[in-house]
Amino acid sequence: MAEAKKKMVLVLCAGELDRALACMNIAVGGASLGMEVTVFCTFFGLNAIRRAGVAPAPRPEEEPKRVGLFGARALRRAFAWLNPGGGKYMNPSRFSFGGLGRKLMAYLMRDSRMANLDELLALAAGMGVKFIACTTSLEALGIPRDSLRPEVTEFAGVASFLAEALESDVPLFI
Amino acid sequence: MAEAKKKMVLVLCAGELDRALACMNIAVGGASLGMEVTVFCTFFGLNAIRRAGVAPAPRPEEEPKRVGLFGARALRRAFAWLNPGGGKYMNPSRFSFGGLGRKLMAYLMRDSRMANLDELLALAAGMGVKFIACTTSLEALGIPRDSLRPEVTEFAGVASFLAEALESDVPLFI
Amino acid sequence: MAEAKKKMVLVLCAGELDRALACMNIAVGGASLGMEVTVFCTFFGLNAIRRAGVAPAPRPEEEPKRVGLFGARALRRAFAWLNPGGGKYMNPSRFSFGGLGRKLMAYLMRDSRMANLDELLALAAGMGVKFIACTTSLEALGIPRDSLRPEVTEFAGVASFLAEALESDVPLFI
Repeated sequence: MAEAKKKMVLVLCAGELDRALACMNIAVGGASLGMEVTVFCTFFGLNAIRRAGVAPAPRPEEEPKRVGLFGARALRRAFAWLNPGGGKYMNPSRFSFGGLGRKLMAYLMRDSRMANLDELLALAAGMGVKFIACTTSLEALGIPRDSLRPEVTEFAGVASFLAEALESDVPLFI
Repeated sequence: MAEAKKKMVLVLCAGELDRALACMNIAVGGASLGMEVTVFCTFFGLNAIRRAGVAPAPRPEEEPKRVGLFGARALRRAFAWLNPGGGKYMNPSRFSFGGLGRKLMAYLMRDSRMANLDELLALAAGMGVKFIACTTSLEALGIPRDSLRPEVTEFAGVASFLAEALESDVPLFI
Repeated sequence: MAEAKKKMVLVLCAGELDRALACMNIAVGGASLGMEVTVFCTFFGLNAIRRAGVAPAPRPEEEPKRVGLFGARALRRAFAWLNPGGGKYMNPSRFSFGGLGRKLMAYLMRDSRMANLDELLALAAGMGVKFIACTTSLEALGIPRDSLRPEVTEFAGVASFLAEALESDVPLFI
């Protein structure tokens, strides 16, 4: 049984609510079928595994090896403010309307008794889905590691992802 | 031959015209190479397999098990109006311009004698491509089953998709 | 070793900077692990492999077999102007802000000493990654072949992509 366990690797690159929901639904579905599921989060897909809200400034030792452009620190803070984490700040890929579409979709999903993104993430992690944060993207977007949700247990780069993808039966880029 | 038939599963999650066109082109290409192709449509990808226009209100027995939030029914109708189905209402992922980009792209494709999305869908179905609508997404977006195009023959959830993905040689998430 | 070489096929369909960067990072990662990597660019993903700037008008023999709609040539030129090629004109999938988000992201990546898209593309090609341009999309978007970057060495349609996908260990649609 352990030998025959099927594997799935999902790359969550999209920061849109609907794609993140699809990712979590597939992850939960795979885990409930007994598959070994890994979700590798990169770029704006990291928002799905971040604590809600604006990330704090990274600690000095976590700051990227910077070229030291004038004003870059201030721009990083501005970017962190523009790009808050957590499912409740994610917009759908259509109808963003400055955040109104997000609220509308959340409202309709709640009305249909559907789990929201954070609930699906917790459910997936409880079922053994492994969440990995891409270290390169964390640096590029200025997201400190301790602002990620506790479900994230690993940090890795593209080589680790590829090693998993080569072993997986179903690799999907979302 | 029947044993050796290669399988491909496409998840169409994107509601953008260019990604939907890519999906249909790959499906038609696969079918013409003798592959067994399944297109699983979810979230805004459902728009590609809907009849053109605004979906009618779901019949009472098709309504999702609702929490009964105040105003949810009115919001569902507003959402249905905002999210019309069919290829001719899909925007490209760039240059939406409030619908102008869509018309521009349709115009240029027609000028190049290319098939439009609906024609590709009909062609794919005629070649044996199977179109499945995700039941969870249908409920979340309030799309009644009888507003889908006749090419859609199956309704299923994530477990069915995963069963197909595990058997497929080429799984792609679009 | 040559027999056992693992294969990866990436379809780059997205014209967003973050997805194109993810694609190039995965391609470079795969090549550095000794994999045989092919990147098949289609629709707005073609922008990643175009020379920077507005494409020149296609030569008469490269013009698509046109229906000859009134004004189509002028619209094609307008479209070429709207859709410039090259990494430095690609917007991220969030925060486009009319080009400001693109500059912000480029600035922060440079501050973190990260390679930009064009550098990653050149690196990937130098490591043996094969870049293929989709002929159908080139025609639809009116992009002449000689406006592509020199790293692009092949032109092919969906059948070639599928032949490669069937042989690949990791097919991803980006």
